[in-house]
Amino acid sequence: MRNTQSIRGPVVPSRGPLRPLGTDEVRITGGFWAKRQQVNGEATLGHALAWMDELGWTGNFTTVANGAGSPVRKGREFSDSEVYKIVEAMSWEHGRSANDDLNARIDALTSTFAAAQAGDGYLSTAFGRDWQRPRYHDLAWGHELYCVGHLLQAAVARTRTAGDGPLLDVARRAADHVCEVFGPGSTGVCGHPEIETALVELARLTGEQRYLDQAALFVDRRGHRSLPAHEFGWSYFSDDVPVRKATVLRGHAVRALYLACGAVDVAVETGDDDLLDAVAAQFDRTWARRTHITGGMGSRHQDEAFGDDFVLPADRAYAETCAGVATVMLAQRLLLATGDSRYAGITDRVLHNVIATAIGDDGRSFFYANTLHQRTPARPNDDGERLDVGGGLRAPWFEVSCCLPNIARLLASLSSYLVTADDTGLRLHQYADCDVETRLADGRPVGIEVRTSYPEGGDVAVRVTRSGAPWSITLRVPDWATGAVLDVDHQRHPVAPGDVVLTREWAVGQEIRLELPMRPRFIRPDPRIDAVRGCVAVERGPLVLCAESLGENDLDALRVCTGHDPEQTGDGAVVRARFDAALDSSWPYGEPSARPGTPVPLHLTPYHRWARRGPSTMRVWLPTA
Amino acid sequence: MRNTQSIRGPVVPSRGPLRPLGTDEVRITGGFWAKRQQVNGEATLGHALAWMDELGWTGNFTTVANGAGSPVRKGREFSDSEVYKIVEAMSWEHGRSANDDLNARIDALTSTFAAAQAGDGYLSTAFGRDWQRPRYHDLAWGHELYCVGHLLQAAVARTRTAGDGPLLDVARRAADHVCEVFGPGSTGVCGHPEIETALVELARLTGEQRYLDQAALFVDRRGHRSLPAHEFGWSYFSDDVPVRKATVLRGHAVRALYLACGAVDVAVETGDDDLLDAVAAQFDRTWARRTHITGGMGSRHQDEAFGDDFVLPADRAYAETCAGVATVMLAQRLLLATGDSRYAGITDRVLHNVIATAIGDDGRSFFYANTLHQRTPARPNDDGERLDVGGGLRAPWFEVSCCLPNIARLLASLSSYLVTADDTGLRLHQYADCDVETRLADGRPVGIEVRTSYPEGGDVAVRVTRSGAPWSITLRVPDWATGAVLDVDHQRHPVAPGDVVLTREWAVGQEIRLELPMRPRFIRPDPRIDAVRGCVAVERGPLVLCAESLGENDLDALRVCTGHDPEQTGDGAVVRARFDAALDSSWPYGEPSARPGTPVPLHLTPYHRWARRGPSTMRVWLPTA
Repeated sequence: MRNTQSIRGPVVPSRGPLRPLGTDEVRITGGFWAKRQQVNGEATLGHALAWMDELGWTGNFTTVANGAGSPVRKGREFSDSEVYKIVEAMSWEHGRSANDDLNARIDALTSTFAAAQAGDGYLSTAFGRDWQRPRYHDLAWGHELYCVGHLLQAAVARTRTAGDGPLLDVARRAADHVCEVFGPGSTGVCGHPEIETALVELARLTGEQRYLDQAALFVDRRGHRSLPAHEFGWSYFSDDVPVRKATVLRGHAVRALYLACGAVDVAVETGDDDLLDAVAAQFDRTWARRTHITGGMGSRHQDEAFGDDFVLPADRAYAETCAGVATVMLAQRLLLATGDSRYAGITDRVLHNVIATAIGDDGRSFFYANTLHQRTPARPNDDGERLDVGGGLRAPWFEVSCCLPNIARLLASLSSYLVTADDTGLRLHQYADCDVETRLADGRPVGIEVRTSYPEGGDVAVRVTRSGAPWSITLRVPDWATGAVLDVDHQRHPVAPGDVVLTREWAVGQEIRLELPMRPRFIRPDPRIDAVRGCVAVERGPLVLCAESLGENDLDALRVCTGHDPEQTGDGAVVRARFDAALDSSWPYGEPSARPGTPVPLHLTPYHRWARRGPSTMRVWLPTA
Repeated sequence: MRNTQSIRGPVVPSRGPLRPLGTDEVRITGGFWAKRQQVNGEATLGHALAWMDELGWTGNFTTVANGAGSPVRKGREFSDSEVYKIVEAMSWEHGRSANDDLNARIDALTSTFAAAQAGDGYLSTAFGRDWQRPRYHDLAWGHELYCVGHLLQAAVARTRTAGDGPLLDVARRAADHVCEVFGPGSTGVCGHPEIETALVELARLTGEQRYLDQAALFVDRRGHRSLPAHEFGWSYFSDDVPVRKATVLRGHAVRALYLACGAVDVAVETGDDDLLDAVAAQFDRTWARRTHITGGMGSRHQDEAFGDDFVLPADRAYAETCAGVATVMLAQRLLLATGDSRYAGITDRVLHNVIATAIGDDGRSFFYANTLHQRTPARPNDDGERLDVGGGLRAPWFEVSCCLPNIARLLASLSSYLVTADDTGLRLHQYADCDVETRLADGRPVGIEVRTSYPEGGDVAVRVTRSGAPWSITLRVPDWATGAVLDVDHQRHPVAPGDVVLTREWAVGQEIRLELPMRPRFIRPDPRIDAVRGCVAVERGPLVLCAESLGENDLDALRVCTGHDPEQTGDGAVVRARFDAALDSSWPYGEPSARPGTPVPLHLTPYHRWARRGPSTMRVWLPTA
């Protein structure tokens, strides 16, 4: 069992083949993600707080706690969770940047949480007071345990970055209350999983066994249809089949993924390999059959849910941003639990294609859903378009704005996802400019610097900054990187996709260079995915590319000529394409015809960059000529 | 201006090139639709009434009217409309079958409506009493005017089939109240259109100009964003753009289609050709770009809405049954207003592929949504599947059960959609066994008998049963019927799709025979419909066919060989097809492979017949080899 108190990361299992490094052990120093971390700290946090202040979500804690005149509470029943999530994000950011203003704001918000907490530890601004609906009368939709889960995660982040303090006290009292009400005698689960993973992390932080036990109870209780029947089915809540018996993730994507995180956490801490294997198999099947090429999960707008296997329409792909965050959370847990670097590859894909896409350049706008195909340019001021989560422009806020604080907490803690330690040394999972200093299991200090132009370029340089007796550096060669070359000891070696383990008595200053081939490539979909039959996508490195048009091209008419390989240009590609204008008719079924165009070069750009120049049309899947 | 009081039909314009025939002038005597009319009368009406009684929807009128103890009202805020719709259906059925039980039940329900009506004519069981929310405080979602609209249509049906009576009195008082509250000084419109078309029909029945004026006010008022902003946008309510300025139907499909019906009605009665042309152009564009091959409209589950042009995924086609009914309503109005038999072709397609599909053989189960692709068999008792409107089994009832009474009223009045009269004679639009007797514009009695095996067969025999001086019989040759042959005067003539006008001094007993070619044919989609690229469908006559599997075939692996034309078998077809099993991989994008199968014959059956033998998989669009 490792010491789980001292590591500054969002997920710190007490066992497993890989030990996560804390945000103090890995610091992102430049490049693609450094810029986003900076914008997150300087713009997103303040932007989200300002909206929550304006809408009264932060104020709820004080005004509702005072209770004078039975005040009207603002926002949806789960708005407390957004405040907790932004406090979690602020805590990681404060840990990273030591920003005093953030520190003060966290303390101020914490005192409002404490003021709103009932004497027995219950904490919600939406339920339980004389003039409100009673506590826990609507477990399916009330989100009370969900909110407490986010409170716990905020407290974990705060404590791991700033030490014990009042937020941890609030969280422990709330968790104790949950254990009392929902202990072995109860059958209750929350309609929205989240409390499970949060309780385990609080147990890891505090060493309190009852939190882990309670999480295990919640995981085992799920799937027995204890929640009321609903139009969306019990699957919406993952309450249709017990976690151990399910074969695939289903229903509401974020709910399913959060629950899976909690189940992995419980499995790891209790040594329950059957549970771990079950969840890993569910996730693997979901990845193989229910995931968009971007790594986006959840294809259905109506219930924000996974569709059936291979139902992955690009037209109105949902791929909620929060599901992207949750996928990274789950992949990280499975990576740490299994050591299988496939899961790091999943994180790579989701980070560069969902997370990087969802947030605006200014950090003050975001996508709630991430479509793969925009047919008509969004109209920013027309017909409430900015309110529609399916719209093709990033919006400053939505009525439900879970996604922005979720991205914020991920970005602020991102350095904890890059590198882990195993028994013999360091493993590099995600390539970004970073400085790493840690101690190996035997206590020896080691350090490296990583410099890369990834994801634009494929060059990765790892320089040893601290070393001693022999230890290993393991590099992940991504699945797509056939033809990669490793330059070490003044020799160049071809390396195949998978893990490359280099064990040496490393000298300080010694360098390893990995060259990943970044030629753009055509990608063909499984023939069972009806929605993109007859199409190809183009990828370059970890980036999914797209065709975007600000009016110059009619992307409905686009036909790609796949006889020529795509050519590289910047971080995008050029393909040969025709524009075959379809001829209109009064009925679109019969023997339709089109006027073939002349092949011309077509530039494709990274998907994450779309809709940054104004309203546009876009498509990831390109019909072939 | 024709006499609109004496014609027993649901839509009786006072002018226009075609006069509808009433349900007493056209009687369906056998075949495809006679069976369905019979089941409708004998099973569906009683089934729907029993559910509405059980759920308290019919009882609301009495219990809420009494008001003792502030009784809890049952059902959703629009449940009154379902009761009115079933009364409309019962009225048409009573007119058809003279069933005394129906007559008594209509009278009994009518007295409960009268009891619930306020002194000033306001009628709703959901609003306006001391213990209820106030009248008209939520026009967007309250559905009060929508409900009154259905009351008016019920009263029109009752009056046209049974003469003046208490239901007409209730309706007139309700309509007068609407005119007083929502007259020229108001800006209010209902979130769900329906009152518009209903007011016009009541005006046609009663000759009351103020009802027509009020309908015109509602139509003109729509599109100015007077309803509150909503996540779905103003387009959901068709309140984004004025009716005259819109170019396509958009938003909630049933709302848009009902509004269009009302606009056509207003245009016809006021001689407003600009408005008529605008709506016709919107519908034409919708048919050309936003309609599934079945004629189903509305592709989005989330908001039951039209998607963008060509966003027509088969996977989870919504194609709500009510939208099918509304499409028939609108097509019939445009047929009567323009004389263009294209609109009869639209009705033909929707009747045989949406309406015929939606209702179970026993008349006691129905589809709310009509998918074009079922990937996994529905599980009737699992996970609340029967509650999910997207499920692949017909359900006896849904929480919102608008569709069943909507089909019931259409089926009970269906004979009014088959044949019309023009200046010179009769026009046959839909082919079904029927006896027709009417008088032409000059007062001459004429009659025909139609005998056909349509839609299974393509033979149509028209025998003259009553005649005099020369008059015309016009036959519609459907768009798909290239190669049709007409046998008249002992001669066979090839006839092209379109209208064939035969003017003769017809002798009683003289026969015309039309032979429509019923060879099954491959249909290819417009290349802009991404979701079905690389697929064909097969049609035979007016029927869309489908592949259905009760487990014997994996339809995900199906590949049709289009080198051979489909062969006819019964009312279906046989195509050559392979089953190419896709090879599983851990990620479904890259270079997927499949094991090609050996071509085998594959039977296709009419789409309307799917899911009648138990849970199955199904697809209308067949990937090509």
